[in-house]
Amino acid sequence: MKAIKGNIIFTILPQKFEVFENSYLLIENGKVKSIERHLNEESFDYEIIDYKDNLIIPSFVDLHLHAVQYANIGIGMDLPLLPWLEKYTYPEEQKFGNLEYAKKVFKFLIRDLYDFGTLRSCIFSSLHKDATILLMKMMDERGLSAYIGKTNMDRNSNENLFENTRDSLKWTIDILDEIPKFSSRIRPIITPRFIPSCSDELLIKLGQIAEDRDIAVQSHLNENLSEIEWVRKLVPESKNYLDAYDIRGLVRRLNTIMAHAIYNTDDELELMKKESVFIAHCPSSNMNLTSGIMKAKKMLEMGINIGLGSDISAGDSLKMNDIIVDAIKASKLLSLFTHDESDTLSIEEAFYMSTRGGGKFFGNCGSFEYGSFFDALVIDDSSYNLKPDASITERLEMFIYRGDDRNIIDRYLEGRSLKTE
Amino acid sequence: MKAIKGNIIFTILPQKFEVFENSYLLIENGKVKSIERHLNEESFDYEIIDYKDNLIIPSFVDLHLHAVQYANIGIGMDLPLLPWLEKYTYPEEQKFGNLEYAKKVFKFLIRDLYDFGTLRSCIFSSLHKDATILLMKMMDERGLSAYIGKTNMDRNSNENLFENTRDSLKWTIDILDEIPKFSSRIRPIITPRFIPSCSDELLIKLGQIAEDRDIAVQSHLNENLSEIEWVRKLVPESKNYLDAYDIRGLVRRLNTIMAHAIYNTDDELELMKKESVFIAHCPSSNMNLTSGIMKAKKMLEMGINIGLGSDISAGDSLKMNDIIVDAIKASKLLSLFTHDESDTLSIEEAFYMSTRGGGKFFGNCGSFEYGSFFDALVIDDSSYNLKPDASITERLEMFIYRGDDRNIIDRYLEGRSLKTE
Repeated sequence: MKAIKGNIIFTILPQKFEVFENSYLLIENGKVKSIERHLNEESFDYEIIDYKDNLIIPSFVDLHLHAVQYANIGIGMDLPLLPWLEKYTYPEEQKFGNLEYAKKVFKFLIRDLYDFGTLRSCIFSSLHKDATILLMKMMDERGLSAYIGKTNMDRNSNENLFENTRDSLKWTIDILDEIPKFSSRIRPIITPRFIPSCSDELLIKLGQIAEDRDIAVQSHLNENLSEIEWVRKLVPESKNYLDAYDIRGLVRRLNTIMAHAIYNTDDELELMKKESVFIAHCPSSNMNLTSGIMKAKKMLEMGINIGLGSDISAGDSLKMNDIIVDAIKASKLLSLFTHDESDTLSIEEAFYMSTRGGGKFFGNCGSFEYGSFFDALVIDDSSYNLKPDASITERLEMFIYRGDDRNIIDRYLEGRSLKTE
Repeated sequence: MKAIKGNIIFTILPQKFEVFENSYLLIENGKVKSIERHLNEESFDYEIIDYKDNLIIPSFVDLHLHAVQYANIGIGMDLPLLPWLEKYTYPEEQKFGNLEYAKKVFKFLIRDLYDFGTLRSCIFSSLHKDATILLMKMMDERGLSAYIGKTNMDRNSNENLFENTRDSLKWTIDILDEIPKFSSRIRPIITPRFIPSCSDELLIKLGQIAEDRDIAVQSHLNENLSEIEWVRKLVPESKNYLDAYDIRGLVRRLNTIMAHAIYNTDDELELMKKESVFIAHCPSSNMNLTSGIMKAKKMLEMGINIGLGSDISAGDSLKMNDIIVDAIKASKLLSLFTHDESDTLSIEEAFYMSTRGGGKFFGNCGSFEYGSFFDALVIDDSSYNLKPDASITERLEMFIYRGDDRNIIDRYLEGRSLKTE
């Protein structure tokens, strides 16, 4: 039982911040029991940790990233999706047959996830079984939480990044069988790369595995117009791109993440809502690959679940602060081009997506509501905050726009500090 | 005489990088004499500084920033230009009547300019004379180079940020008279805030001062449609916004910076070219205030001088890496909306603008051509570079996208290291 004191700010709904100045977060069994202005007699048993004037915010959740592309950040920002995959991405991913290389890249990735305060994430590995298991092990050892999936891709890849349907399925099951070795922080997820990479047989059998074992699914959706046209040709019987997954059993209620979702039909939006699909909004990636801008604000207002994704390495930063800022900037340019101010995301909405929006995929995470897991960052903003009279909300805004890992002085997952020193 | 060794990369023209792997930059009197693969006998007198595998790049030039808005970064990103000025910016600037406050803010600004490797900049101060002189003094003491102007504004401001025409002119001249006290790194610049802030009399007399004393001019241009409409009403005799400055004598050949320049008429583009006006492209600011996207690529191709500006605090980052990335991202969204791929900026073009493009305003700066001032950053990318086979160009790209001040291990201005330790 801990009582953690500081300036507390978080979201429950997308539209507004909940602010508790100079208050105590009471934590029991890793979960938020209450937030109190003062401790009463019953709280005498709590271990008090006083962060004084610092901010306490929910830690970040990254709903979409490719661990095996981390070495490529910043390189190859000159092409759109399909040629970008061929030229830069597949050649990098094929290196993960080598476990020494995989270990080196994952070490940097995990260091940076920790540093930047992204304590939960949903990760695409490569198609390689051993690299995927290694990533699970390394993430678990660092105390981070993640859904991690081996990428399935049995068609339309290059000759050095190839698996046949049988291997793809066998390796998927082999990995599922490894999961009990890890803590509950590490969870499996079925990860067909995207429709063009997966044969019908593979998709159908992955859907069956997900159904039989009740496992989550993640993939890509409506990122790029050429991609959508290709999917239409590959699955002519589908009504739309999301339907192409759905008819293979890969849209699982409350248990599916689709990244991008820029060009959606009304039917797809309805299905997202009906099945509570989680959308990973990846604004940085979508700008880098000139993919488009997702109408995040309108989709939030429709009640669709949305979190933010770095989409490394089409995204150029793993730092969630950057992705929040890009989400807002992209939405402002969208509003300029649609001549519709109501497309502009507020800081509240963008922060919500980066914490509670994605956190819901992990259960009761990403907020400090009663019963939430206490996943938190402690922010010391003294290195840049020149405004002694700034409100807690303004201090959060300043952290998002100008803070970095040096300002995060403690990180909690499920009530435990992840500090190793 | 120094021979500085490392992996050298810079631009002379916007379209391509000049790369000299593992070579020597020979520096005499603070200027680049040559770049050599090997030292010959004549070079034995040179002090050799070997940066081994590190990158050596030109230091950054920020063509447009408001020093007196630095405390506001990240706050108030919810409004367009004119209400944003009223609500957030003017109330902050009025604080600079207090020199203690000014000193505190400038200290952070100068620390960050140094840290981020922006060793030359063009700065708006507030309307206050003493704060402006203090900024000149503090910048000079830190060894940074800048054009610094007291902002002139004798109409349409709020009651707490006000000067009459006579005071505005007198304080401008008082500051000019202080300039000889500083090193040649610190230069004056006439700084009418923008047409709506300056009476006709003020503009005309500022033009005369600039002419009489041969002093540079900086202001704002074509940032926002409401602003442009306002200018049209205020100066009905002008052909366009740039002409409103020109007819007051404030467009000075090769000696004028105009920030933003998003919505330009053909006549304005012609005049920019004819008078070699420098345009400060401020993509981050333009996204934050939903102003629009300047057609930077097409303007570069027309031969217009363009540098990058952080435009603090409408811009949200002083870090030039971020502004380069935002320039590219914004140009990609522009190309998406214009359906014209030729609006997309390359990394070469964006880097050129951040170094040579703005550097030209300072003379022969921002490049390592023969005769250029040796203004440079030394980049150690070992904290993130996972690619032992990366080319020098790829390593520069990675630095731009994922590096930060911790990767800049040395900074040179006019041949001298600015390290104080």
